[in-house]
Amino acid sequence: MSWIEIPANSDFSLANIPFGIAKAGGKTFAATRIGDSVVNLDALDNAGLFDGLSLPDGVFKQETLNDFIALGKSVTNPTRLRIQELFSADNAKIRDNTKLHNDAILSLNRVKMLLPVRVGDYTDFYSSREHATNVGTMFRDPNNALLPNWLHIPVGYHGRASSIVASGTPIHRPKGQTKADDADVPSYGPCRLLDFELEMAFIVGKPNQMGTSVSVEDAEDHIFGMVIFNDWSARDIQKWEYVPLGPFLGKNFGSSVSPWIITMEALEPFRSASPKQDPKVLPYLEMKKDHNFNINLEAIIETESGVSKTVSNSNFKHMYWSMAQQLAHHTVNGCNMNVGDMCASGTISGPTPDSYGSMLEISWKGTKPVAMPDGTERRFILDSDSVIMKAFCEKDGQRVGFGEVRSKVLPAI
Amino acid sequence: MSWIEIPANSDFSLANIPFGIAKAGGKTFAATRIGDSVVNLDALDNAGLFDGLSLPDGVFKQETLNDFIALGKSVTNPTRLRIQELFSADNAKIRDNTKLHNDAILSLNRVKMLLPVRVGDYTDFYSSREHATNVGTMFRDPNNALLPNWLHIPVGYHGRASSIVASGTPIHRPKGQTKADDADVPSYGPCRLLDFELEMAFIVGKPNQMGTSVSVEDAEDHIFGMVIFNDWSARDIQKWEYVPLGPFLGKNFGSSVSPWIITMEALEPFRSASPKQDPKVLPYLEMKKDHNFNINLEAIIETESGVSKTVSNSNFKHMYWSMAQQLAHHTVNGCNMNVGDMCASGTISGPTPDSYGSMLEISWKGTKPVAMPDGTERRFILDSDSVIMKAFCEKDGQRVGFGEVRSKVLPAI
Repeated sequence: MSWIEIPANSDFSLANIPFGIAKAGGKTFAATRIGDSVVNLDALDNAGLFDGLSLPDGVFKQETLNDFIALGKSVTNPTRLRIQELFSADNAKIRDNTKLHNDAILSLNRVKMLLPVRVGDYTDFYSSREHATNVGTMFRDPNNALLPNWLHIPVGYHGRASSIVASGTPIHRPKGQTKADDADVPSYGPCRLLDFELEMAFIVGKPNQMGTSVSVEDAEDHIFGMVIFNDWSARDIQKWEYVPLGPFLGKNFGSSVSPWIITMEALEPFRSASPKQDPKVLPYLEMKKDHNFNINLEAIIETESGVSKTVSNSNFKHMYWSMAQQLAHHTVNGCNMNVGDMCASGTISGPTPDSYGSMLEISWKGTKPVAMPDGTERRFILDSDSVIMKAFCEKDGQRVGFGEVRSKVLPAI
Repeated sequence: MSWIEIPANSDFSLANIPFGIAKAGGKTFAATRIGDSVVNLDALDNAGLFDGLSLPDGVFKQETLNDFIALGKSVTNPTRLRIQELFSADNAKIRDNTKLHNDAILSLNRVKMLLPVRVGDYTDFYSSREHATNVGTMFRDPNNALLPNWLHIPVGYHGRASSIVASGTPIHRPKGQTKADDADVPSYGPCRLLDFELEMAFIVGKPNQMGTSVSVEDAEDHIFGMVIFNDWSARDIQKWEYVPLGPFLGKNFGSSVSPWIITMEALEPFRSASPKQDPKVLPYLEMKKDHNFNINLEAIIETESGVSKTVSNSNFKHMYWSMAQQLAHHTVNGCNMNVGDMCASGTISGPTPDSYGSMLEISWKGTKPVAMPDGTERRFILDSDSVIMKAFCEKDGQRVGFGEVRSKVLPAI
């Protein structure tokens, strides 16, 4: 229990204590969220409430969390526990200090949330078996939907870090080169098949030197936390460009993330088994314990006039390849990871159509349009639509959630 | 003519004036090179020799050139011209100032050159028709070697920025997952087919906002300069992983760049036509003037005992797609580029086997080994080999060059 009011079903219970970067009153600062209150961690730091935790001066006054995260879990975990303590029901230090209370605790509507980290490199995996199977069924062979490497490798590719933006940032419909199946030559114009991909991403918290690898066992110690990740995709651009070197302009016009990083420690109670891996993976990918997490996911389309429909209910636990395996694979060749690097999961589809994580799958290449409550239909995403993704864990009455990532699609410039 | 001695055939004539980041005597600073002398630009700045150029305090005292480059060509070009003036034969300002001369001018062997920019995002193109044709001939269909999109799109993919390192940094042979053609299951171990790719890269000097595009006409104004780029490749790892999302661990264990950025202004006299583009490209990719450059390229293998052999003599002018087209394509969908971003060309192969830019092509998948002067053979690169790449322009007795990128391969850790 906290002395701050926490609405029932809030993602931001006292068990959560996420980290983000907020802007209010012209200042940018690191923050946490409890219920519907945003807490200025720099104000708490200035009041001496983090004394003894070995935080460098001004670490919460920066425009990203990279330097804080780089301090390592031996500092960030005690900081999170200290925050929990300060907001526990019987702790009067902030509660009864009117000035500090006013300075440090802001209501949500006074705050703009920014991108929480400076992303050095961004990798996108392709780790949902259901998603890979759906794509293979649609575009290749239903009887042989998975490519030969898929069950042996957590397949991934490099994406664009510069165009990762925070929730609330609008996305312009991309223009580009496409070729219709029945056309002789390609043409240029706005993307016609704009899609979302319901993903999550982890943020690297501990670097590894070039030439060295991170084992599956050590991998979670290298992960600071997670966010929701919308991997915007222009299906028509992607289709014409991606053979043989992979997705490029079909993806790099924008990716949207939720603003609060939920720590691995907050997610610990929701640890879950991965789907059984058969065939057996190579030893460097073997897991000796559960490395997946039970995180409920939802994707919603909202029209300009505010009519909305949930088009997917999925779960992170469906992931065939775990984050620990992804990181072990990513570094097995000595690739160096830095603090703030982001690795997304790939579209997280469940086994049933109502749990598919992209319009490509939900509308099955546009053949099964989704009926919206206002009578319109969606095969893909239209201009002025917003896409909202939510994620939360719940167990034994305890809830830890991610809030949402929300982005509105604007017409091509 | 300069008052600094410049050896005949030096890449670093007074017409060059490149920019790099040097380390000497425990200090890191921006530098240029004239002949075999490295010039500390921070020392010149402190002596007031850049007065009137609107350089911010300490811009040459930083660990990367990003802030200098971000000042834009209206500042960086006059700075380069000022340096040319200061080192012209009749300019006594440094020449006759013993203390400044000693402080600012260092011999090469006293200096370690570092990575010149902090690379935000790195993209690798695939723009040599000869290279794409060779790869298509080897792995697909000799009669239909180019994929359908290749003549319409400057095909590219995102690479790993964190593992781009400066010349002189050793590269560990990567380990990873591979599958032999005749094996039922993949296996794990050190890469057996380690290769170089002879490439060049351009460095973005002017950003574009997300959602906006850079035209072919404006593109060179967004490019600060170029470096030599060795895109290390593990062919066996790449082969097993790259379908359908492109190269990943086969590439991201390391890329090596030459330390001096040669500006577009220094390259101007060597402007050259591109190969004729047929079929006609879409209007957003059309070139109204020559956007290629005549840059001689060389790749050399040197053994542990110092025996060396030139295995390729190629030229940047063979590029089918120009840098201007690459940048216009990269941003046509609104993808935002930042100062310091790097875009590599892809392997630059010429029309004849002695101009192929990778061992994959030179040894034709290992079927035509290269005889080294010491009697050994090379199909791919062995542990303890060094790969050296050189690049220079020459015309009317004027030479502007890049120096070299040199990297030694160490055994897998």
